[in-house]
Formats: sequence, C-alpha cells, structure tokens
Amino acid sequence: MILPKVFKMNTLEKLIEKFRQFPGIGPRQASRFAYFLLRQNPAYLKELTSLVSHLKSEVSTCEKCRRFFETPRSASRLFCSICSSKNRDGAKLMIVAKDIDLEAIEKTGGYHGNYFVLGESLPILEKNPEQKIAIKALFQRIENGKEIKEIILALNLNPEGEHTADFLTQELNGQLASRELKISRLGRGLSTGTELEYADKDTLNSALQNRF
Amino acid sequence: MILPKVFKMNTLEKLIEKFRQFPGIGPRQASRFAYFLLRQNPAYLKELTSLVSHLKSEVSTCEKCRRFFETPRSASRLFCSICSSKNRDGAKLMIVAKDIDLEAIEKTGGYHGNYFVLGESLPILEKNPEQKIAIKALFQRIENGKEIKEIILALNLNPEGEHTADFLTQELNGQLASRELKISRLGRGLSTGTELEYADKDTLNSALQNRF
Amino acid sequence: MILPKVFKMNTLEKLIEKFRQFPGIGPRQASRFAYFLLRQNPAYLKELTSLVSHLKSEVSTCEKCRRFFETPRSASRLFCSICSSKNRDGAKLMIVAKDIDLEAIEKTGGYHGNYFVLGESLPILEKNPEQKIAIKALFQRIENGKEIKEIILALNLNPEGEHTADFLTQELNGQLASRELKISRLGRGLSTGTELEYADKDTLNSALQNRF
Amino acid sequence: MILPKVFKMNTLEKLIEKFRQFPGIGPRQASRFAYFLLRQNPAYLKELTSLVSHLKSEVSTCEKCRRFFETPRSASRLFCSICSSKNRDGAKLMIVAKDIDLEAIEKTGGYHGNYFVLGESLPILEKNPEQKIAIKALFQRIENGKEIKEIILALNLNPEGEHTADFLTQELNGQLASRELKISRLGRGLSTGTELEYADKDTLNSALQNRF
Repeated sequence: MILPKVFKMNTLEKLIEKFRQFPGIGPRQASRFAYFLLRQNPAYLKELTSLVSHLKSEVSTCEKCRRFFETPRSASRLFCSICSSKNRDGAKLMIVAKDIDLEAIEKTGGYHGNYFVLGESLPILEKNPEQKIAIKALFQRIENGKEIKEIILALNLNPEGEHTADFLTQELNGQLASRELKISRLGRGLSTGTELEYADKDTLNSALQNRF
Repeated sequence: MILPKVFKMNTLEKLIEKFRQFPGIGPRQASRFAYFLLRQNPAYLKELTSLVSHLKSEVSTCEKCRRFFETPRSASRLFCSICSSKNRDGAKLMIVAKDIDLEAIEKTGGYHGNYFVLGESLPILEKNPEQKIAIKALFQRIENGKEIKEIILALNLNPEGEHTADFLTQELNGQLASRELKISRLGRGLSTGTELEYADKDTLNSALQNRF
Repeated sequence: MILPKVFKMNTLEKLIEKFRQFPGIGPRQASRFAYFLLRQNPAYLKELTSLVSHLKSEVSTCEKCRRFFETPRSASRLFCSICSSKNRDGAKLMIVAKDIDLEAIEKTGGYHGNYFVLGESLPILEKNPEQKIAIKALFQRIENGKEIKEIILALNLNPEGEHTADFLTQELNGQLASRELKISRLGRGLSTGTELEYADKDTLNSALQNRF
Repeated sequence: MILPKVFKMNTLEKLIEKFRQFPGIGPRQASRFAYFLLRQNPAYLKELTSLVSHLKSEVSTCEKCRRFFETPRSASRLFCSICSSKNRDGAKLMIVAKDIDLEAIEKTGGYHGNYFVLGESLPILEKNPEQKIAIKALFQRIENGKEIKEIILALNLNPEGEHTADFLTQELNGQLASRELKISRLGRGLSTGTELEYADKDTLNSALQNRF
C-alpha cells in the first residue's frame, strides 16, 4: 500500500534522493539508476551492498601520503604501496589534489618520487584553507621527510588549481624557509590536440621556451 | 596488504567495476562515485546499502500494468495505485516503454486512462521481440480488459520508438481483429522550443494539420 | 608599405571587420573568411562582388507578402510567384517571421494558402512593435484581402515567437473585430526525435489531444 | 519575372551558393548571410564589394615568408614588415601552417625570429606533398638564409600537424644534411585549463620533464 507522500517517502524515492548526491548526477539520471537496480538480479544487488558496506573497513588512508589504499591485513603496516616501496626517489614529493590525479601521474611511468594527496583543490574564496585541504598533515610530512629536496606542485591548470599552487608556494616558502627546498610546478606547453590559433598567450610562450 | 592483482581485485576496484554497469557511466565517473563514497560518513553508507537491500522486497511489479510500485502491506492487493483506482477511465490503455515515460504522462495531469509498461523499446533488428518486451502480458491484459476501447501507443518519436509502435500495431491488428479497438498514437507537431526553419517536413505537416 | 595602424586600418582588417557583422560570425571565423578569399582566384572574387552588387536591384520585396523575390523584368508585375499564382487558396493567410520560415513551410508541400512575412520576430520587451515588424502592411494586406477567412500564426515555439503570436492575436482581434476571421496557430505535439521523458507538459498535453 | 530554374539560377541562389564555399558554412548559414545582405543599406554593400575587389591588389604574398601583407606602395619592397625588419633574429626560422598561426605567435611577444608560412598542414595520406605545401619555396628560403641556425616547427599538436612536422623533419634532414641546423618543435606540457585526470600520458610526461 502506498502511504500518502506527506507521511513517508518510499524506498524508491529515498534511493533516488541518495543517488542525486553522487557527483555530477541530476534527478533524471538518479531515477535511471534506481530503475536499473530494480531490473538487476538479487545477486548483483547483494554484491553491490556488500562492497559498499566493506568499503570503509577495507580501504584505509595512507598515513604518509593520504591516498586511499586497501587496508593492510597486518597491523604493522600503515603505509600504501608507494610510500612503503624502497624503489621510490625520496628526494621528490609531488603534491596532488586527488587520488585520481596521482593515478594519472603513475600511469605515465615517468615519475618515481613520492606523493602527497591534499584531498581537494582550494576554492578561490575559501576562508579556512586548513579545513579544506590537508595542509597541516602536509607540513608534518615534509618535516619528517628530511630527505626531500624538491616539492612538485601538480595541480590542475585552472583557476582553482592555480590558486591552490599559489597558496601552497606562499605557505611553503614561509614555513620552510630554513630548509633548502626547490618548489616546482608541472611544465606548460602544447597539450595533445592543441591548435596554435586557439592556444592562449601563456601556453604559447611556455611552448616557445620549452621547445625541444 | 595489497595482493598482486592477478590474484584478487580489491574492494575499491570491484566497486568501480559495479558502478561502470550503471546506465551511462564510464570508467572515470565510476571511479569518482567510489571516491565519493569513501569520503562519506558511515551513516550515509549504511542508509544507502539498506535502501538497495530492501529495494526488491519493498518495490513490486504491478500485475496489471507492469510498472514498479511500493510493495503492498496487505497480501490481498497486487495492483499499483493507478490500476486499483476507481477514478481512471478503463476504456483507454496507454502503452509506454518505461516507468519514466508513464511518470512524464502522469505529470501532465491530462490523461486519466490506464497504462501498460513494456519495459523497453524494441530494437530495430531484434529477432525475439517477445523476449525483449512484455508482449504476451500485454495481450493478456487487453484480453482481460473487456472495457478497453482505445489503445494509445505512447512511444518515443525516434527510430526505435517508431519501430516499436509499428510492430505493436501489426500484432494488435492481427490478434485482436475480432474486437473493435481503436489504435492511436500521440499527436505530432511543434514541440516547445521548435524553430520552424529547423523543423522537419513530417513535423511541419502535422503542425499544419493540427493547427488550433 | 604598411602605414602605422593609428592612421589607417588596412583592407584586410576592414574586410574582417565587415564579416564580423555577418549573423553568427565571430572574429576568428571572420579572419578565416578573409584569408579564404585571399586564396581564391580573381574570377571567384569578381563573381562574388558582382552578385552582391546586383543583389538589391535584382531582388525585390513582394508588395503583397513582403518576401524577397527575383525582380520582375516587366514593370507590370510586382508580386512574387506565390502571390501571383492562381492556384493558391486565398482564404488562408499564414504569417511567418522570415523568408526562411516560408521556405520551410513550402517544402512540406502541404500548405496551399498565401503568406505574409513579418521580417522579424518581436523581441519580448520591444517598445515600438510597429518599427520592428511590418504590422501596418499586414493590416493593409488583410483589409485588401476580402477573401481571407483564416489567419495562421506560424511563429517559432520559443519565447520570442510566442510573444509575437500573442501580440498579433491581440492586435488582430482588436482591429478586425468586425470581420469573421479565424486566427489559428500551428499544432503542437511530439516533433521528430522527441523522447517522452524529456518532453515538457505542454507538448505532451498537446500530443495527447492531437493523438491520431 | 522568375524564369524556370532549369534555365537560370537567380542572383539570390547564386549568392547562397557562393557563401556555401566559405569555410565552415553550411546551406542554412549561407542563406542567412544572403538575407542579411538583402536587409543592409546600399552603402554597406558598396563598401563590402569594394573591399573584396581590392583585396587581391592591396594584399600581397611576402616573397620571403609567404604571409599575406598590405601591398607595398613602392615597387622596390616585396617583403612584409617582419621580413624587412632589422630587429628580428635571423638565426631562427619558425615554420607555421597558416597566417593565423603566425599571428597567434606574434601576439605572445615572446618570439623575435623570422617565419615561413606553409599555407596548409599536410593531410596524412597526401600523395603530392609538394603541391599542398610550399616545400620548394621553403628550401629556397633556407638556402638563401645562410644565417639560419634553428628551424622551429610550430605545427598543431593534432594528427595532421604532427604528420606535417614529421614530414618536414625528414625532408630537412635529407636535403640540408650538409648544414648544421637545429630542428626543434614547440614544447609540450599542460595547457591553460588542463586538468590532470583528463591529460594524456605524453602531455603529462612532457609536463614532468619541463617542470619549472
């Protein structure tokens, strides 16, 4: 029996409501997800809920780089595979906004240093940067990492990413003045697909300087 | 400890895999969903899994129109609110492809007949139409509905929708020749936003005929 | 010799400037047009300028419907081919915004009445409608057309088009109250390609009413 | 009088036909251009045709770099303002596909060498490269330019542009083996707006190498 809506939202409506909170999902796609699940067999649904239930206990945050990783079985290790590897170059620390950015860099196979994941970019008008990005944990990480010589700011080349890089540069220069740290950013130039007539001045100037 | 991938996909990867099966979701957005869930508090995750778990038991398929509806508490009723309403015009049966189409029509407030939900549109080269759409259940529904005078084919005006309408018209004419049934389709004309210079010939011709 | 730009814009720059005034053309495409012309042979350019030069003298505005048409050689005819045809149904007058809309309707082959071209749609906040659209000429046309029984407002189904239709309905009702004129609009419904779940309420309601 | 179309296309139709040959212009926009011109006053049309008529005589192709420039008044100079300037660095020759690419580079203010305009990029399956791009004139230019030390291939980072760069590299290496010429390409990296998670491997690798 469908109770009047003033009294109670039904399961379907509540689920649609939940899906609407997923990143980039509007009401229409949220509905489609719910109807999609209705058409799946019980095994699929059981597997899905089991994965979601165990997600938090089976995935941990690395205490060194703050990326997500499969929770270790042995309590003695709290670091992710990169942070606990002996084949990484401890002199380089690359700061990224999100796990997905770290994954993109790893896929290139061209970087062998360590990482630190901020969790987010810094919104341009953010009043409490410390609450938005893991700045304190970052300083702790750098302080403990005596071997670090270069910090690479690998942020998106959009306003928010550039704001984050500027903010971090200022903070790092202020608080780590005593240490000799090189702070670098990812190089600019033509990206795959770029057509010169549509490229902006900064991109072209970098492309001229970085010609090879 | 992360086991080698040849042995075991981890929870995060399996969840991303599941989200990739959601309609319209590619690998990138599937990843984003997983990372989004990782950042939610346990209460959110518990609520989500609980809703998914109870979805099938709390949502039933109406035995008359085949739409999804909140499972009735009393076992005596198996029909959805529309099919069990006494205020609907039993002489009209509108055939739609999906629940979402039924919802769109209901929102207009301009239709007071009954519905039948096919579940899908019929792909143009489908060899087993009976397995794809609920054609047998439809004939049963019409046979039982002695009061039905008009069948309205409310299908999308795209190739698949038109194919479905053509197929149903043929089947209905063949099998229900003995009954006097009017088979109609939704009217064509200018849709909100249509500009004449971009409108196709069929649309303009219908708009001319249906002028008001 | 290139004179300093403060003194004189050169031919290329002036031409780009002209192309920027073409409908829908930005600075980049305007440049591309100019460079395109530079690469054409002299015969192409000569033909182009000749066509533009003769455009106004070789194309006239029909005194009856105000559409553009090839200037008649004999001074005795001032009407376009449609307005001077004896095979059109003089009882119907369709009002369109632009020549291009008239062409779209003619291509359907389903309309055999006459036309009147307003020249533009009426912007929603327009203060002097008479200066924007040919409203006086329209009333003259209707007054002279004693055989007219129906006026069909064939305007775009967007806010500007609907505003134009509302404005004309009001004006026609006001000034032609003494004559029995039916004022109609193009029918609404599903356009080719419409999917029900994306259709708005008005469109669906019309589609329900105009079902066939 | 409109003659039957089998005999004669009218001025309007011919003009629309001409506009359809403009780069990126389809039949609909070509019509719009023609109707736009019909609504302009005679002064506008006269100015437009005058500019087009004088385009070829008032714009020349620079004999050195092959870019278009305002035809010099004195017959003694045949070079554009860049090629005749004494403030450019003759040791650098940048090869671009089109004038518009040269303009984009000039706007950066960061390049002070000379240019050579190919006219086009080289289509990937082009059988007669010499007919498509000004390869002979390029070799002549380099041969005459004894001061040239570096040739910069500034081509789009799309398949056609990369193919053109590869082709030129091969040709230049083959025919100019005797001279010590550095052949370089524009640097790759993050372009303004790039988000790391969407960047391809090559772009990220270059961005890592070119970090600053």
